[in-house]
Amino acid sequence: MKIGVVTSGGDAPGMNAAIRALVRYAFTQGFSILGIERGYAGLISNLIVPLDPRSVGNILHSGGTFLRSSRCPEIRTPEGLAKAAQTLKTNSVDALVVIGGDGSFRGALEIRRVSGIPCIGIPATIDNDVYGTDETIGFDTAVNTAVEAIDRIRDTALSHERVFFVEVMGRNRGFLALHVGICVGAGVILLPEIPAQMNEVCRKLKSFEERGKATSIIVAAEGVGNTMEIAAACEKSTGFEVRYSKLGYIQRGGSPTARSRLLADLFANEAVQLLLTGAQDKMVGVQGGHLVATSLGEAVGREKPLDMKLYRLAEELAV
Amino acid sequence: MKIGVVTSGGDAPGMNAAIRALVRYAFTQGFSILGIERGYAGLISNLIVPLDPRSVGNILHSGGTFLRSSRCPEIRTPEGLAKAAQTLKTNSVDALVVIGGDGSFRGALEIRRVSGIPCIGIPATIDNDVYGTDETIGFDTAVNTAVEAIDRIRDTALSHERVFFVEVMGRNRGFLALHVGICVGAGVILLPEIPAQMNEVCRKLKSFEERGKATSIIVAAEGVGNTMEIAAACEKSTGFEVRYSKLGYIQRGGSPTARSRLLADLFANEAVQLLLTGAQDKMVGVQGGHLVATSLGEAVGREKPLDMKLYRLAEELAV
Amino acid sequence: MKIGVVTSGGDAPGMNAAIRALVRYAFTQGFSILGIERGYAGLISNLIVPLDPRSVGNILHSGGTFLRSSRCPEIRTPEGLAKAAQTLKTNSVDALVVIGGDGSFRGALEIRRVSGIPCIGIPATIDNDVYGTDETIGFDTAVNTAVEAIDRIRDTALSHERVFFVEVMGRNRGFLALHVGICVGAGVILLPEIPAQMNEVCRKLKSFEERGKATSIIVAAEGVGNTMEIAAACEKSTGFEVRYSKLGYIQRGGSPTARSRLLADLFANEAVQLLLTGAQDKMVGVQGGHLVATSLGEAVGREKPLDMKLYRLAEELAV
Amino acid sequence: MKIGVVTSGGDAPGMNAAIRALVRYAFTQGFSILGIERGYAGLISNLIVPLDPRSVGNILHSGGTFLRSSRCPEIRTPEGLAKAAQTLKTNSVDALVVIGGDGSFRGALEIRRVSGIPCIGIPATIDNDVYGTDETIGFDTAVNTAVEAIDRIRDTALSHERVFFVEVMGRNRGFLALHVGICVGAGVILLPEIPAQMNEVCRKLKSFEERGKATSIIVAAEGVGNTMEIAAACEKSTGFEVRYSKLGYIQRGGSPTARSRLLADLFANEAVQLLLTGAQDKMVGVQGGHLVATSLGEAVGREKPLDMKLYRLAEELAV
Repeated sequence: MKIGVVTSGGDAPGMNAAIRALVRYAFTQGFSILGIERGYAGLISNLIVPLDPRSVGNILHSGGTFLRSSRCPEIRTPEGLAKAAQTLKTNSVDALVVIGGDGSFRGALEIRRVSGIPCIGIPATIDNDVYGTDETIGFDTAVNTAVEAIDRIRDTALSHERVFFVEVMGRNRGFLALHVGICVGAGVILLPEIPAQMNEVCRKLKSFEERGKATSIIVAAEGVGNTMEIAAACEKSTGFEVRYSKLGYIQRGGSPTARSRLLADLFANEAVQLLLTGAQDKMVGVQGGHLVATSLGEAVGREKPLDMKLYRLAEELAV
Repeated sequence: MKIGVVTSGGDAPGMNAAIRALVRYAFTQGFSILGIERGYAGLISNLIVPLDPRSVGNILHSGGTFLRSSRCPEIRTPEGLAKAAQTLKTNSVDALVVIGGDGSFRGALEIRRVSGIPCIGIPATIDNDVYGTDETIGFDTAVNTAVEAIDRIRDTALSHERVFFVEVMGRNRGFLALHVGICVGAGVILLPEIPAQMNEVCRKLKSFEERGKATSIIVAAEGVGNTMEIAAACEKSTGFEVRYSKLGYIQRGGSPTARSRLLADLFANEAVQLLLTGAQDKMVGVQGGHLVATSLGEAVGREKPLDMKLYRLAEELAV
Repeated sequence: MKIGVVTSGGDAPGMNAAIRALVRYAFTQGFSILGIERGYAGLISNLIVPLDPRSVGNILHSGGTFLRSSRCPEIRTPEGLAKAAQTLKTNSVDALVVIGGDGSFRGALEIRRVSGIPCIGIPATIDNDVYGTDETIGFDTAVNTAVEAIDRIRDTALSHERVFFVEVMGRNRGFLALHVGICVGAGVILLPEIPAQMNEVCRKLKSFEERGKATSIIVAAEGVGNTMEIAAACEKSTGFEVRYSKLGYIQRGGSPTARSRLLADLFANEAVQLLLTGAQDKMVGVQGGHLVATSLGEAVGREKPLDMKLYRLAEELAV
Repeated sequence: MKIGVVTSGGDAPGMNAAIRALVRYAFTQGFSILGIERGYAGLISNLIVPLDPRSVGNILHSGGTFLRSSRCPEIRTPEGLAKAAQTLKTNSVDALVVIGGDGSFRGALEIRRVSGIPCIGIPATIDNDVYGTDETIGFDTAVNTAVEAIDRIRDTALSHERVFFVEVMGRNRGFLALHVGICVGAGVILLPEIPAQMNEVCRKLKSFEERGKATSIIVAAEGVGNTMEIAAACEKSTGFEVRYSKLGYIQRGGSPTARSRLLADLFANEAVQLLLTGAQDKMVGVQGGHLVATSLGEAVGREKPLDMKLYRLAEELAV
């Protein structure tokens, strides 16, 4: 069996570890692996490179994806799909493994439909917004990067006794912001899933000050809207000096944490196992500590719920 | 209700986060909290400090334990226990929360027996060797610290094309070494639970070289014996230059990772919940992603199994 | 002799190390030290705390300033200055050491004029924009923080073969941006001191692409204007996808690097030496590897030149 | 002109940055560059790879040396030297740049003698033990790595109120230990250059305890002898619990700090300049903030003095 592997969409730390584990485990099973470069764009334009255990040496710890990635709208067109299917045929690819997020899995479903070959998804995105898995590759790394960044900001916040308003990534979901918020001890966490009343936020900040808490950190998901304006409104309403920071792209990169690496190994291993057992369109995932498979259709069709209990705990600890 | 909290045994990153979460969540439930300093030694000698939400401000991200800790053999004597019980009585402590490892929980069981007050255990140790929980507070931090350290060593290993032999902590168990080993892509992982034949290890190293892998990293748990001698034997037998490094105490300290902080929050919250529901001698833990309670007796009496599937995966990826 | 010490203006990593060294070295000379809290605001409102070698234990490695700081316009008014002088008199302060940037030293000159006591400046700012010293406390830390952040961004830049535009701090000067730019291998560095032609920047980016350099990083000082608009103009003109990130407040905080700590020790030591030799209004500094003293008047009155040779080297290496 | 470049001896963070800068700056001057792999061993066995600006892309931030290195005793033999000279001749190398420490420069002098081509040295070693330069490439990185490691150890030291004894690298010199010691606030620093009396060390530790300093860190250079035995003797004599840690190989690796990168750029630039001006056997260096050239003979023949003033300051701050 010849397996193609592609990294697609936004890069996430641990993608390289996943490619390495996939290549090496597939190798032990007697499969050969072709790397597809530059995401679906490379699938369309036939950018193929053979991979073996040595060609994935010394990449385990590096961020990004050495196969490179891209956002590729062309994959949603009949022409793009036809070219992709042709590439798979030309290179005698028997199965495709897609490492990416839900947008990439939508593409995978289409490729599977047109090419007829099995497609397995490995969820890798710092946003953790994929249904069917408690955690995605790269999420733990992004959480830690943001937490370390805010720990730095805390030094200034404490020195100047100010309120800091920090925007973190997460697209239109609040998974990253919630985890980061609770882990930095944020006074307020703003999430797209939980509409916040501005006067309630300001009331909280004032109550913190009354209780002697000179410094507060507000963590806001990018999905809640224009966070810079919200911060300004907050400053105006409370009269406190509010400093604003948007962490931005630093959250995407960096060497993967141990957990992101481990997840990459487990997911890659499971992906090959699924192919061995004849799976056609599954996404691997972890639920309650166990590896599970979800149909790609379900993974892209359903919305992953936010852990409301965790949100309430974060609120209770902000006293 | 007045709750006493003590950190005992070896320190672990996230202990401060656990104290903070405990104090704050207990406060929201109307309880007051007394901190016991210097582990069980402070319980015996009545080193007590009242804690409130402000006194645990700005400690979430710091390593170690601000209450300090100690190893205290006296707690195993009738005299020590009597003094500990007296301290609890004098300070009208209604329940005790012990943050530490299995040795500390053995002490907790004795204290419970003598004092008659409920004792709840929160597992916090970098060794992750506590039955009843998949993970302990501090484990994820120690894994990441060791992984980052070995990533540095890899630079030299690659530059000089040498074999590196690295000892990590874990007392007499291999949890830390197994996770570190798989996350750094170790060629060989030596664990106390899995007796290794020296000639088998050397055979592997030679086969790596034959397949063009110029550099190998061996991760060994401290529990496997005199690792420096093992490394020397390995060098003698293979003829390769083998460099040795014992990571040592750096693995204990440092700011807790996001995961160690989160676990601290969840465990502390659950500990208070257990007290609210009348628990007398439980340890909180996480299993399969869910919070669970195990009796302290079971936690200290049973041996946590190693994840053999993970070990085999590590072996399969080392090609 | 009784020495007062105050941290003023923006915080910088290493301020705590400087306070510690000042207190300890002054102690060995038989002096006592008073800490003034919250910058000049605390000098005006008499927020004084005695410091001894133990009270500055375990702060060496922490970012920010435990004495806290503030921006305090009142110190520029006759009323504010009178109150400050009164505080110094009330507490029998014989000399004042000001740790901060040039704004703080302007204040120090006024305080010296009104109070008549000697004032010594220790330059500490991440901007490194103080005349009379090659380097300020905190600069090396901020450079490294920005470099590490951009190393993370590079992972995404390489994975997606994009141009990244990164704004770093530095107020109206380019010291930080120049050092960061050369250390990350920036293709283009934009500094307030060197007006850039937009078409020249775009021409460079295009020539990079022609020479096979798929990814470029542009480092821009905040002092060059609205960097987000410049990045957008750059995108429009070249047709390349340009990603924008403003590093923001993470550059201020964090544990000081070895160099920032060492500079703190050397400057604090020299400040006490200057007081011993009767100096009245000096700023300590380092020039060509040697400790030097500059009059505070000169330090605030003259403009520190940018190292143009370093800028040209950065340009030459961007091929 | 065709320039050969080789990294020799122990690897140091920033070697890759130096190669990159050398290749790129030489390219702007119209030179071509040949990389010699595996140190002098590759020079002897003709392991040559042409380098251009693209082949050194994206290596600036990586530790170690991508050309790899080795210790090569054969270069000290007439046969080895003859082969090395032949390689240089065969490949029409007009000048050789050696990146390494004093051992490597001794080799360079011999190669120059036998081959007759100019040899320029770029000092790169974490030990900083090279005469003719205040600082070597990699030193600042190693200092920071050790300081961060000891900051972690401090967490445990404070939690348990113990004395920690930490061995750092530096071969037979104390440059690394001195800088690390002052930057972590060590109570005692043991250096090969300053023989210590054991009873004096113990007296200091006791006096710290009497003054309420519960925790002390002793930093010892590897060059002072068997540090584990010294630590044990210290424990026996004081009665304090003394914990021991040898930082080991983590000090060699890791991404270079900003300063190590900057030094790499400056030194590489200066090396090419020296070749342009006809230098035959010089080592570049930095003294008092200025770039200087020292004859290779002097660099390897003289001993770099330790900064005794810094040592005394470290002692004075340890109160």
